[in-house]
Order: sequence, then C-alpha cells, then structure tokens
Amino acid sequence: MNKHVLAADLGGTNLRMAVVDDTGTVIHRCRTKTPASGDYAEVVSRIAETAKQCLDAVEATASPTRLSLAIPSSVRPYDGMIVYSPAIPQLNGSRLADDVSQALRMPVTLENDANAAAVGENWLGASKDVRTSICITLGTGVGGGIILNGELYRGVDGTAAEIGHICIEPEGRKCGCGSRGCLEQYASATAIARMAEELLPEFPNSILHGDVSINAHSIYNAGKGGDDLALKTFRRMGYYLGIGLSGLVNLLNPEVIVIGGGASAGWDLFADEMRSELDKRAFQQPAERVKLLRAVLGDDAGILGAARLALNSTAVGTA
Amino acid sequence: MNKHVLAADLGGTNLRMAVVDDTGTVIHRCRTKTPASGDYAEVVSRIAETAKQCLDAVEATASPTRLSLAIPSSVRPYDGMIVYSPAIPQLNGSRLADDVSQALRMPVTLENDANAAAVGENWLGASKDVRTSICITLGTGVGGGIILNGELYRGVDGTAAEIGHICIEPEGRKCGCGSRGCLEQYASATAIARMAEELLPEFPNSILHGDVSINAHSIYNAGKGGDDLALKTFRRMGYYLGIGLSGLVNLLNPEVIVIGGGASAGWDLFADEMRSELDKRAFQQPAERVKLLRAVLGDDAGILGAARLALNSTAVGTA
Repeated sequence: MNKHVLAADLGGTNLRMAVVDDTGTVIHRCRTKTPASGDYAEVVSRIAETAKQCLDAVEATASPTRLSLAIPSSVRPYDGMIVYSPAIPQLNGSRLADDVSQALRMPVTLENDANAAAVGENWLGASKDVRTSICITLGTGVGGGIILNGELYRGVDGTAAEIGHICIEPEGRKCGCGSRGCLEQYASATAIARMAEELLPEFPNSILHGDVSINAHSIYNAGKGGDDLALKTFRRMGYYLGIGLSGLVNLLNPEVIVIGGGASAGWDLFADEMRSELDKRAFQQPAERVKLLRAVLGDDAGILGAARLALNSTAVGTA
Repeated sequence: MNKHVLAADLGGTNLRMAVVDDTGTVIHRCRTKTPASGDYAEVVSRIAETAKQCLDAVEATASPTRLSLAIPSSVRPYDGMIVYSPAIPQLNGSRLADDVSQALRMPVTLENDANAAAVGENWLGASKDVRTSICITLGTGVGGGIILNGELYRGVDGTAAEIGHICIEPEGRKCGCGSRGCLEQYASATAIARMAEELLPEFPNSILHGDVSINAHSIYNAGKGGDDLALKTFRRMGYYLGIGLSGLVNLLNPEVIVIGGGASAGWDLFADEMRSELDKRAFQQPAERVKLLRAVLGDDAGILGAARLALNSTAVGTA
C-alpha cells in the first residue's frame, strides 16, 4: 500500500492542500482563503480545519499521518522558528509547525515555498533525478531553491537561496527588501510590467498604449503580435536574468537551472537573450554544462515538494 | 604516531611543498620555481623531483604515503581532468594527478587552490570548526572556496566558487574571463591599483602622484598616512566587495566569510565600507548572522588545506 501525506501551500491569498501518495499522485485537493485578518491564531485554526476536511474526504482510502506545509517565509532549520515572513507577517517569530501540530494532533513540518518548489521539480519535474540544480520562480517577486548533491540547501538559518535579491545593478531600482538593483526588480512579473511602462514614451506606436492595466501577460501577447516595445521589454528582462544566472553558474556550477512562475510563460520572448548573456558572461565549462529548463509542475511544485520532504523525512515528532 | 602527508601549492611562479602531520604542523618545507617553459612534462617532473627531495629530507622521522596538490585550476571531481587552468595553461586537459603519481609511485590528488585555502582556514584558521563558510582570496585576482555543511562544495565539474566572477556592475570593466563588471575588477589587488590610478586627476595633491609603481601596498601606506585618494580607493573597493558579499549572504546564508590574500592587508581601510554595504543590502537575518573575518593562515592556507583533504581522504588509489 502506498504511503500518503498531507501537503499544503500557504500563500498570501490562498491555502491549497492535498493528499499526496509516495508516487506523487494527488488523490484529493482542498482550497480555501488565507485569513486576511492578520491574526496568527486564525491562520493556525484555518490550516487545522482544512487539514481535517482533507482527512475526512480520504478516510476510506488513505490515512496520512503528517502534514507538510510550504510557506512564503524563512524557517530556521534547527528549531522551526519562522524568521522572516514578508507576505504573511503574522507568522514572524512563530513556531507554526508546533501550533498546528497541537491543533491537529499530527506531526507538522514547514518549508519555504520556493525551496519546496525546487524539491518538487527535482522529484517529478524538469530537474528530475538531477543531483545539483537551482529552481527560480518568476512571479510577483523572484524566489529560489537550491539542491546540491541531492539535498535541499537551506543555509545556517534557513534564509538561503534568495536568488531574487542578488544585486545585478548596484545603483538600480529600489527593492522592497531595502536594497537596490536586485534581480527581482528586473525579472519578476511586476518588473516586466514596470519596465514596459517606462518604455512607453519611446514607442508611441505600441499597442500597449491602449492597455489600461499593463501586465506581464498582456505584454507577452503584444510581443507575440510583434509589438516592439513588448519585445524590447522581454529582451531586457532576459538580459538581466542572464546576468543573474551567470553569477549562479560561476558560483555553484549546477547541472540544471529550472525557471518557473507566471512570468516564465514569456519564455520564447526572453530565453534567447537570457542564454546569450549567460554564455557571454559565465566561464565556458559551467556555461556549456548547465541546462536552462522551464518548470513543468506549475502551481503544484510547492505542494509536491512539501509532500516529498515529508515522505523522505524520518522524523516522528512535530518538527 | 602521527600520520603525515606531502602537500603542495603550485602557483604560476613558485612551487611550494611541505610535509604536514595530522595536527597541521609543518615538519619540512621545500620551494622551487614553477617551470616557465610551458612544457607539461617539465611540470610533472619538477613536482615529482621536489616531492622526492621532501621525502628524503624527512626520511628519519616521517613516511608520507600520498601527495596532495593545490593548483590554480578547475579539476573535474569525477575523473581528475583539469578543465580550466588560466595561470598554468599547459595543465589544461591533463590528468596531472595520474602523471605525477606514475613518476612518483605514490597516490596523488588535486584540488583547486582557492578551494584548498578555504579548507585550510576551516581546519586551522579563521573559520575553524564552522560548518558553513566562504573563503575569498583577494590577490592578483579574486578567488573563492565554499564549505557547506562541513563539506567542500565543488559543483558538478569542479568549477564552482568563482566568486571573483560574479557580476556586480553589468556594463563595468572588461574582465580577463571575457565578461564585464566582475567583482575581481573592483576588489583584487590589481583593481585597487587601477582604481587609484583612475582617481589621480581628481586628487592633484595626493602623494601617490610621486609613486612610480602604484600598487595595493603603496596605496595602503598612503591611506594610513591620511591620503584622500588612497582612502577613497579602499572605500570604493569595500563598497563593491560589500555588494558581492550581500549576494553571497542572501544566496548561501553562511556563518562566516573569511577574507584573505594580499589585498586583505588593507582591511582597516575597507572593512567598514564593506560591512555597511552588506548590512544595507542583504536580508537582516543572514546579514546579522554572518561574521566577516580576516584569514589567519596567510600563504600556508592552500598547503594546509591540501594536507587536510589528503588526511581526510579514504582513497588509496591515484584518485
């Protein structure tokens, strides 16, 4: 009989949960809203209630004995303390795993969501069976996860792999993190929209002048239709992404870099520029070696990665 | 009785070798020139001859049974092939360990010299007993070594940790590696001299106008005497080094970063700017956690690291 776990992805807006078996098959899904109140206890009880719903729904076929949660936060590996949680600030300083575990009477483990996505893609996705890979998520921000020699790399306090906050333009755009010129300011979906808006005056004939809410998706569509402003925006994004990748390649010499998240849908408009900038800048050996691949698991990467981490875990306690 | 190994540091100019025991004590040293002819076979025989001299000298007290060589090259971990060797190009594509082993009739292993220095500092130096640390060497170029969870991290083809070739100024100075704006162009001893020369016109009263061969050392002395040009040069170097460190800290969340090499002698003129730039740019948690420390082993870091790697190795062949 297959082993099953509960796995969840807690985002700023939605809480998605699933029962997953040890082949990575999702046998049941639940979805609810992340409480918007800012109250920590409400987050704990919402997770526990959703877990109970999931458990009830699969009662006849599966008995998951642990919950693995992907969260948009840094989690200290040695004590489970949440050390940085910009998207859900009420988690800051909490021990969410312990508290949910108490409410649910089941062991609970936490993982940063971008780390979980890297594990998911490494288990069942684009970097399957690859020992050393990096996963980059281009969404509202830019997230990252690093797998080295088959193991998720977390750093000493669980804050590693903040690929979106490597500086690539020292006096560039102010970033939400407090720094300037972070990769996130040039390669996220948010950045693509901003860069297109900045270019509008240079391209009086762009169809994007008629677009009331320019976003990465509408810019992509314009680019597919041949709009020069849109094409230039994605080339610019590819240029900066290539610079960021060249640093990663010279530093970590990985086999594969997986690129996912909403903005990765623009792949055919930025990939050439990204690859060419990488090849120009990184050392020849590691540049030739590294494969740049699109993520394949979409929104499920985090849940599947969380499931994988729980299935691989030998812990029996609450952490 | 202590175990002994032969350990060597092959540089572009000198070959230094030592017999080292398992406490890290150097019991004998030999030194010769690296052959300047560009002939590969001559390098092999020079290493073997020097090793024999060392062995003869310690015959009465120690019997090292292997040679561990630190070289300024990338070595592929899985087959020992030298994949990139800019400073000693005749090593490119060779299997130096096998060839020296045959000449010497003794197992020989290779390691990149910056990696070896990181291991040395981690064994007996500034990052002693620290599980996760990065070592940066500021010399003619900028080298790096990364220790993660107690293990030297080499990457899939042994080219990892090229910290000097992370881009920090996208359209900045052309670098010898083919890219632009690499950290090496702003934080090496060479870069310090170049930046000071660039600033000469701005500082007509600098005492460096009378310096016929400006170098990092003379600039440091000028700075200690209060020369504004020299002080500005080191602040600029600290600014760029801090930007580079902020990327490393956000990416790898290390406990310690060790900074060595000739240009690290200017520490008291660049450390404040480096630390302040790091604190401004990196995430608060990992920035507060990381200690920035000066290397303590000097020129011996590479030899001691090479020794440590051989002493820890369980291999009995030629690796």
